[in-house]
Amino acid sequence: MVPDDELERIGRLQSTLRRQKIDGLLVSQPDNRRYLSGYTAPDHGIQESSGFLLIPADGRPYLLTDSRFTLQAEAEAPQFEVRLYPKGLLQLLEKLTGQLGIHTLGFESEYLLHGTFQRLLAMAEKQGLALKPQHDLIEKMRAVKTEKELNLMRASTRLNEEVFQSVYNTIEPGMTEREIALALDLTMREMGAEGPSFDTIVAFGTNAARPHAVPTDRELQAGDIVLIDMGLVFKGYCSDMTRTFVAGKPDQTFLDRHRLVRRAMLAGIAAIRAGVTGFAVDRAARQVLIDGGYGEAFGHGLGHGVGLAVHEEPRLSPRSRKQLQAGMVVTVEPGLYLPEWGGIRLENMVVVGEDGCELLNHDTTCLDL
Amino acid sequence: MVPDDELERIGRLQSTLRRQKIDGLLVSQPDNRRYLSGYTAPDHGIQESSGFLLIPADGRPYLLTDSRFTLQAEAEAPQFEVRLYPKGLLQLLEKLTGQLGIHTLGFESEYLLHGTFQRLLAMAEKQGLALKPQHDLIEKMRAVKTEKELNLMRASTRLNEEVFQSVYNTIEPGMTEREIALALDLTMREMGAEGPSFDTIVAFGTNAARPHAVPTDRELQAGDIVLIDMGLVFKGYCSDMTRTFVAGKPDQTFLDRHRLVRRAMLAGIAAIRAGVTGFAVDRAARQVLIDGGYGEAFGHGLGHGVGLAVHEEPRLSPRSRKQLQAGMVVTVEPGLYLPEWGGIRLENMVVVGEDGCELLNHDTTCLDL
Repeated sequence: MVPDDELERIGRLQSTLRRQKIDGLLVSQPDNRRYLSGYTAPDHGIQESSGFLLIPADGRPYLLTDSRFTLQAEAEAPQFEVRLYPKGLLQLLEKLTGQLGIHTLGFESEYLLHGTFQRLLAMAEKQGLALKPQHDLIEKMRAVKTEKELNLMRASTRLNEEVFQSVYNTIEPGMTEREIALALDLTMREMGAEGPSFDTIVAFGTNAARPHAVPTDRELQAGDIVLIDMGLVFKGYCSDMTRTFVAGKPDQTFLDRHRLVRRAMLAGIAAIRAGVTGFAVDRAARQVLIDGGYGEAFGHGLGHGVGLAVHEEPRLSPRSRKQLQAGMVVTVEPGLYLPEWGGIRLENMVVVGEDGCELLNHDTTCLDL
Repeated sequence: MVPDDELERIGRLQSTLRRQKIDGLLVSQPDNRRYLSGYTAPDHGIQESSGFLLIPADGRPYLLTDSRFTLQAEAEAPQFEVRLYPKGLLQLLEKLTGQLGIHTLGFESEYLLHGTFQRLLAMAEKQGLALKPQHDLIEKMRAVKTEKELNLMRASTRLNEEVFQSVYNTIEPGMTEREIALALDLTMREMGAEGPSFDTIVAFGTNAARPHAVPTDRELQAGDIVLIDMGLVFKGYCSDMTRTFVAGKPDQTFLDRHRLVRRAMLAGIAAIRAGVTGFAVDRAARQVLIDGGYGEAFGHGLGHGVGLAVHEEPRLSPRSRKQLQAGMVVTVEPGLYLPEWGGIRLENMVVVGEDGCELLNHDTTCLDL
């Protein structure tokens, strides 16, 4: 029998709440909400929520939403008691905290608006309820994946590579960045993904010098650098991969720089195992670029966690002091960016293991230049 | 010469700040940021901002961002002084408020996280800076459109209708909800839109009874109800339209209900002019459904403002007491939802005028049943 992930997670969270003497937790962050409940409705920005969880330290958890989502909430989150808030969240929360004897309520400080907090505070003061801001409580749980989650991430990565391959084979001079990005997004959905996990980046020539380039109507010319950074969402789980190549025959400068970035990526991957800090992994890759004379040309962190969100814990950057744990999934994506010339970034995803890591990407296109 | 919208808006906002004795305003909401600066970089959720504005009550405004966005920020927001925060927003803010002599800083209470506010507060207390939460300061400005903005909204609506028409003509039994939604999203982008302004809704039969239905793999059968609610973003501005029809020949029940919803929509539109409350417009349409025996089957508000965001001020609902102003753009979208049968919703957009309104939609497909 497949263990019920959501129930196990709620049990684990409830132990933490009891240990911290919190009677209940209000969950507002949408990925955290999905992680604990299985309820998949997306938010349209923080100002248009499709629901909240109220997790008491003991007993059955609640999913609070409005009438647009009743059917979906009941179908997707059978472990939860679904309650509607026709007169707004606070009124329902006031009633439920009273009924459940919640005297100390935790909330997600990094996903509750100042305005909402002020209104919650007014209600809490009236009711003698203590509010306790929480930070990354569920994010920390999400960072370490179960085998079931890893299988979904393997599938998401495989599908992402198939989409890349299928479009890569059609690229030819005259196509625009926008056309290729559109073809990728369309192919993702045709092949069964929910959609892209972030805005697909296709950048030619000097545009590749912008790490977050937005596709333009620039037409591909023979000899142009092509940078594609793409990911998709499959059954809720994100993938993320970057490849950089040249339309036609690359020159020696490109080859040298591409090999350097690839060596940086391999050095980063080789440094990954449980117990190592994000800082150390970043450093391992960065040193290769510094030694090659391109330290200044690599301005961003080496990588980030991936899961239900495309950017999540942990971070691989000069500032990340936390140790990696087995079961975490991270990207490794060194790059070099030269405004007058262009840019190169290469990115693979790996699963952190006790003694090394598992490479999630198998695509080798344009890696063996 | 075309007046510079952004400069005019900043001047107007600065007058308000001086009147309210606020020395500077921190703008975090991405649509507000774009509205004031022209800087188009999107956020990836509130936890991944691509920048903030700092608008002093006098003098040149600042755009605060990180190195990924320097080029874009400088190109798109020439009136702004672009400053980077390699060590985080707060450190830069501390420096700038000191340099600019800002003693009272406003911030957007409805778009700043509790956690960010706490860190801002710690900095402010150290520096003797007073923080003043603001509500809807820029949202109120955005609600009333300039002629230039209205032209963009006309273009967005026209393009949305062309996309609808082009896909509508291909719909036939056997197609799934997902296929049609995908065709709409693809056609939007092929025809020049940035993308959909919200998740495209295509719902057959009883699925149409869910106002926020998510497209499924259900196949269209002759006689099924088809509800399509779609909008796109064109040069930043959103459109939004709903049509409901039947695959094949509608029966008398559908015709009767469709005509009733259409009459409700027309009654809503007829009630719109400057000075009328959102409540009164909602009521005018709702009364038609109540009189027809379907008051209970219409569970949501009648409409919402549209602009840079697809849902913005003002609201047309039983709770909206504010008066409409000329230049506001709103949807009018009555519906009836019967879980055992299906649903019908019809939606057009209008511009509020002094003595009536301008209909933005010209599409009459499936309206004259």
